[in-house]
Amino acid sequence: MNWNLPNVTIGILGGGQLARMSAYAASRLGMRVAILEAEENSPAGQISAYEFSGKWSDRELLKRFAAASDVITLENEFVDSQILRELEALGKPVYPSALTLALVQDKARQKQTIASAGLPVPAFARVQQAAEVEKFAAEYGYPLVLKARRNGYDGRGNFTIMNAADIEEGFIRLGAPERSLMVEQYISFSKELALMVARNLRGESAVYPLVETVQKNHICHIVTTPAAVPPSVAEKAAEIGRKAIESIGGIGIYGIEMFLTADNRVVINELAPRPHNSGHYSIEACRTSQFENHLRAVLNLPLGSPDLIAPAAMVNLLGTNNAPVSAKGMEKALAVPGANIHIYGKKDSRPGRKMGHITALAPGGTVADALKIAQEAAGYLEF
Amino acid sequence: MNWNLPNVTIGILGGGQLARMSAYAASRLGMRVAILEAEENSPAGQISAYEFSGKWSDRELLKRFAAASDVITLENEFVDSQILRELEALGKPVYPSALTLALVQDKARQKQTIASAGLPVPAFARVQQAAEVEKFAAEYGYPLVLKARRNGYDGRGNFTIMNAADIEEGFIRLGAPERSLMVEQYISFSKELALMVARNLRGESAVYPLVETVQKNHICHIVTTPAAVPPSVAEKAAEIGRKAIESIGGIGIYGIEMFLTADNRVVINELAPRPHNSGHYSIEACRTSQFENHLRAVLNLPLGSPDLIAPAAMVNLLGTNNAPVSAKGMEKALAVPGANIHIYGKKDSRPGRKMGHITALAPGGTVADALKIAQEAAGYLEF
Repeated sequence: MNWNLPNVTIGILGGGQLARMSAYAASRLGMRVAILEAEENSPAGQISAYEFSGKWSDRELLKRFAAASDVITLENEFVDSQILRELEALGKPVYPSALTLALVQDKARQKQTIASAGLPVPAFARVQQAAEVEKFAAEYGYPLVLKARRNGYDGRGNFTIMNAADIEEGFIRLGAPERSLMVEQYISFSKELALMVARNLRGESAVYPLVETVQKNHICHIVTTPAAVPPSVAEKAAEIGRKAIESIGGIGIYGIEMFLTADNRVVINELAPRPHNSGHYSIEACRTSQFENHLRAVLNLPLGSPDLIAPAAMVNLLGTNNAPVSAKGMEKALAVPGANIHIYGKKDSRPGRKMGHITALAPGGTVADALKIAQEAAGYLEF
Repeated sequence: MNWNLPNVTIGILGGGQLARMSAYAASRLGMRVAILEAEENSPAGQISAYEFSGKWSDRELLKRFAAASDVITLENEFVDSQILRELEALGKPVYPSALTLALVQDKARQKQTIASAGLPVPAFARVQQAAEVEKFAAEYGYPLVLKARRNGYDGRGNFTIMNAADIEEGFIRLGAPERSLMVEQYISFSKELALMVARNLRGESAVYPLVETVQKNHICHIVTTPAAVPPSVAEKAAEIGRKAIESIGGIGIYGIEMFLTADNRVVINELAPRPHNSGHYSIEACRTSQFENHLRAVLNLPLGSPDLIAPAAMVNLLGTNNAPVSAKGMEKALAVPGANIHIYGKKDSRPGRKMGHITALAPGGTVADALKIAQEAAGYLEF
């Protein structure tokens, strides 16, 4: 790849907020973006040079999208990896590759790969029958987490099993036997942690600061950084994150969700092969945002510094109404000094839908100072 | 103005880099942008929801542009103020207003207004004949600066008069008697300073940190902040800047260029009624960028904090070739940690054309540290 920069076009499968924020980063570098999304006028399509609308399964559309793109990436890991294979067959570099994506999409294969690299994951097993879960429980005890191996996100596809009597319900709820399942040891965590890793084809990695995440109804709600953990934990987490992305041959940016156990061990929960909600803070708080480093990585360019500029906090803005988008309380939120308000350009609000986020920095202050600003502003807003 | 945020469209007259960076800020807040520019596919048009191409004097086009816009602003002060009057007559809020713009466009009226508010400007006089310049020289001595009252920028429209023998050449060079001229006392400055002021209809102002600027061939080349001046000078400059924008009834964002004299007096050189090159650093270095506060101001929303996050430096990237855009040295520049590279999406490079800029922060460090980063990266790049 020998680009005549800045004259490159990044093709992105998907036109939501992750693609939109990637598009800002591309624009800043003078590059162009092509969006492939079901509907016109998507959050990213609105601000991109090229917009292709229709089904991803439409071969002709896919060809036109590929023809407009110099390199192709995605914002959603639930793309059929066959589509990535077709794009690769059209001669375009695609990151994550079809191979990496297929591996990440199957949570059992994902965990197996990470574990084989000597990295810490919860004990797990592929299961097809209740008896296999009981056998696993005999070794690891209850509670356990039953998971669909594919297509789970924001808590959907998970079912906690408190004792043997729950197993049958879990199988039914998660759609077995049509869907393949796995069972995992339940990790009693003291904190949920995450970090972003960018990696390019040259094998260079940029590891972002460790963050603490707070989930609400299984959706990322609050992110703060630096995480309040001993330095040895942060170093270990950075090493684990970097090696995990190497183990799956990851190119681009990846989110790594981790648990911190009561005895300060770090255990990998899941990987996301794309920009991640837990990395949005990096737009203002890091020397290079996750979105810019994603572009640099897929273009095989030198990665930017992921260093933190100041303690930071991010709070998600979720929809509560079923209605055309309207940000009630915006005037009050704008009046909070230091609150960086991001609204994603979605046409309609829905309960629980990610409509935007707020990031605040506390130069010379603490994470708590930053969180106070972000929460105050978020508290005024209703979508 | 009672907006249903974020559902507003900002109309911008002009589609260059200032409009482009304003469009990022609008997108981040979930707002839309309409661009009116001579050519399609302008730097801002590429990333805006609505793009209108054609002559600003085309009434029908102007009407369609106004119909798409909730509020209208500009990126270039050389718009015929009659066009702003027409837009105002179509019932749209326009900032800067036709009145403010007309006042700023005539450098003599601009200086007169500022001086009448009790603010320091160099001694000046409107001149039509050589004898008037000689009379002025008798009071203030040589050298003097002869200026075209209208349409001068980046040093064009200025002529330095060392003695009486230069006066005739100055009149000819600047196009008198067709063009109206003025003469100004030459200020022997120790530094050139600048700051941005945002002001909304409620009368609230946000005054940005004082910066030092270094010009090369009359074009802004380097900006650093905080300026290395005594605190009393920075306070005085902030007060002068805020009052100057009040004095012209400015709504939106304004750049104020100033001279620091050898005896630490601050004198206003010129105002720009729009986002300004000396404020680009604010994208990364301030809690709210000049572009976002411009949008907030023209929408009459609360202004964001202009506080500095860390010492910062900005270096412009000027074209050296007459050729389709190509950023030679981009790989090396990207490899400089902490260099935020901005490329404006212009199709062609021309010698002296502003093609982009680089901003660097030095959290916990000094302005010199930031400047070193920005200059190193800029040194690798050639357009």
